[in-house]
Amino acid sequence: MANEAENQNHTIAVLVENKFGVLARIAGLFSGRGFNIDSLSVGETLDPTISRMTIVTKGDAAIIEQVIKQLHKLIDVIKVIDLTGEDYVDRELVLLKVNAEPAVRAEVLRIADIFRAKVVDVTPTTYTLEATGDQKKIEAIIELLKPYGIQELVRTGKVAIARGSKAIRKRDEEKIRGVREQKVVGFYD
Amino acid sequence: MANEAENQNHTIAVLVENKFGVLARIAGLFSGRGFNIDSLSVGETLDPTISRMTIVTKGDAAIIEQVIKQLHKLIDVIKVIDLTGEDYVDRELVLLKVNAEPAVRAEVLRIADIFRAKVVDVTPTTYTLEATGDQKKIEAIIELLKPYGIQELVRTGKVAIARGSKAIRKRDEEKIRGVREQKVVGFYD
Repeated sequence: MANEAENQNHTIAVLVENKFGVLARIAGLFSGRGFNIDSLSVGETLDPTISRMTIVTKGDAAIIEQVIKQLHKLIDVIKVIDLTGEDYVDRELVLLKVNAEPAVRAEVLRIADIFRAKVVDVTPTTYTLEATGDQKKIEAIIELLKPYGIQELVRTGKVAIARGSKAIRKRDEEKIRGVREQKVVGFYD
Repeated sequence: MANEAENQNHTIAVLVENKFGVLARIAGLFSGRGFNIDSLSVGETLDPTISRMTIVTKGDAAIIEQVIKQLHKLIDVIKVIDLTGEDYVDRELVLLKVNAEPAVRAEVLRIADIFRAKVVDVTPTTYTLEATGDQKKIEAIIELLKPYGIQELVRTGKVAIARGSKAIRKRDEEKIRGVREQKVVGFYD
């Protein structure tokens, strides 16, 4: 049981003010509790003063809950959502530099085609492929290309968005940042 | 001139041991010098004990160089490469929840088609799109969809890989981690 709980994957979305130091404080909160961050991605939202992080970590649910409560208390953290129990779509992008000697080129391209990966760079001896999908798909293409020789591999880490028409961003801005100029027109609420 | 230097974008690839605390230390190094990290993504490499980070930051070239030197000195940092001056391919993935009321649905799908974005979730009032590309392409699709109402937006941050057949990973493992079991067969070197 303990092991099961420890191995549970958590996907957490965090909206933060786009200021320096925020990332270090958030990363510190996880490492201070002994959590490794398996993947993390940070990018701007529509409002360039706000960034959105997606954090994937493994751990005991009760301790994760504590970490989330502490995240909430951090200055510059606007919203924290544990997507783990929710129904969400997740995607990841990977760039792969794969061996493409003449003998294996056709088979590498065939695998790329099956996974709808795009060739984004070519040399006489390598292809660089771009593939997207959920974690399982990304891992499947990596496994299939391994025998041909993967020379380099960069993953973005997972990003996730809840299914359905609910949006994290708007409710949030209304609630926490007060009424502000809405750059975006939304009709659903 | 000073402004120009300050506004220069830097794309830095960092190979690190996949241990807790590494991310916090690296983020702290940037924030301690007053650098904001514009985007960051971290994911596993082929070797699950090694992660690769892609950091995008703006700043004076001389100070960035100092930060890179300090990164090198951090324990658990295996390799740091400033891709800024190099020829590289960069990609980013974005998930967008867009308003899709009947009146705008056709136009939203048309824009998605032009950018080869995929619809990954549908509700009666929203589409969730997945789009990939370099920064300019991602920003273009966001700009075009804005008038229809973007309800939520998550970006992975940029990942980058050098063009050509050189690979960061292998040379690195050979040099720094010594001879170890090579899971990957590469023919080019």
